Amino acid sequence: METFSNKQGWKDRIKKLTVKTGARSDMIDITGMIRSVVRESNIQNGFCYVFVPHTTAAVTINENADPDVPRDMLMALDKAIPWHDQYRHQEGNAAAHVKSSLVGASVVVLIEDGNLILGTWQSVFFCEFDGPRTREVLVKVTSSEQG
Amino acid sequence: METFSNKQGWKDRIKKLTVKTGARSDMIDITGMIRSVVRESNIQNGFCYVFVPHTTAAVTINENADPDVPRDMLMALDKAIPWHDQYRHQEGNAAAHVKSSLVGASVVVLIEDGNLILGTWQSVFFCEFDGPRTREVLVKVTSSEQG
Amino acid sequence: METFSNKQGWKDRIKKLTVKTGARSDMIDITGMIRSVVRESNIQNGFCYVFVPHTTAAVTINENADPDVPRDMLMALDKAIPWHDQYRHQEGNAAAHVKSSLVGASVVVLIEDGNLILGTWQSVFFCEFDGPRTREVLVKVTSSEQG
Repeated sequence: METFSNKQGWKDRIKKLTVKTGARSDMIDITGMIRSVVRESNIQNGFCYVFVPHTTAAVTINENADPDVPRDMLMALDKAIPWHDQYRHQEGNAAAHVKSSLVGASVVVLIEDGNLILGTWQSVFFCEFDGPRTREVLVKVTSSEQG
Repeated sequence: METFSNKQGWKDRIKKLTVKTGARSDMIDITGMIRSVVRESNIQNGFCYVFVPHTTAAVTINENADPDVPRDMLMALDKAIPWHDQYRHQEGNAAAHVKSSLVGASVVVLIEDGNLILGTWQSVFFCEFDGPRTREVLVKVTSSEQG
Repeated sequence: METFSNKQGWKDRIKKLTVKTGARSDMIDITGMIRSVVRESNIQNGFCYVFVPHTTAAVTINENADPDVPRDMLMALDKAIPWHDQYRHQEGNAAAHVKSSLVGASVVVLIEDGNLILGTWQSVFFCEFDGPRTREVLVKVTSSEQG
């Protein structure tokens, strides 16, 4: 975990996290890493933006209590967007690009009293669609308090 | 409709709305409720974040002029992500979890001169994928004006 | 490219871009237009919101190095959400509405030192699902620096 250098205080920094994925399709719970970034920011009320700078990966919010939920999700996505099809993209990972846009490159989570506001069953997942790889996740925490 | 307690003024509060859904798959237009929250905030220029703290529901923007649009959407989602499939999740609602991630847990709408900036045909919909249930929606309005 | 009139300085303005699409399904790279809006705003650290005020279009982030990526994406979306199906919406464009919600009406991109923070392969695409048409894209740049 490293920080981009800039001339601003913490509130304007972007935190870069590293995630290692273990399979072509994989979902990694990154909620704990994001909570650490929020805690370190000392921001009490505001927003936490999680952004994936890749085009064959994504980030989403879903349930982690039962590991079958992410497994079922990856299976259902594979059925809806099959890996082998009449794609023209030569790299052979066109399906991963499509899934990336369907799930999305970012999520925002509200922060109140220094805590991420997530529902009981919600976790933040990094979604790998063309792994295994070492990936980056950018996190920016911003205050909504005036002045 | 209640407000989380905190020590900030209105701008840092999160508004909690309640939505009752009427079927396993349902879409409820919540634009009016969101407009009320924006009006009450008295914020003139900024952003309105709508966040669903559930893992078998979602929020989206689409057309409400013709009620067939949300109906067709729920039908098309059911075809792309069938309710019965080779899921392992024991609760039997794996499809609802997948749809939740595909549609997404949040939307943001711009605010200008105190109004939500939505296109002519755009409404904000709460999307139920495992109802009927009583659900929550969190709304946070934040100003983009400096100082 | 025009600007909504309001009484605030640049930071509170919403920039309206125009995009012409060339087919029923089309993806147009709008990264350059968005970079111009960010540059003109002179905001160094913050966020750029890109919002589509249409219900049969969307905005996404994906690869543009190989034009086959957007082509494959439109093909895969057409297979998952077929144009002709048991839809009830009389206008005949129900599939476009569904794709609009799956891909989403907005993206947010982080800004640091005056630059959009995008991964090496990431571009911002306007997604047309019921064209060809002339469409609008709203862009709002906001600073995360305090006071």
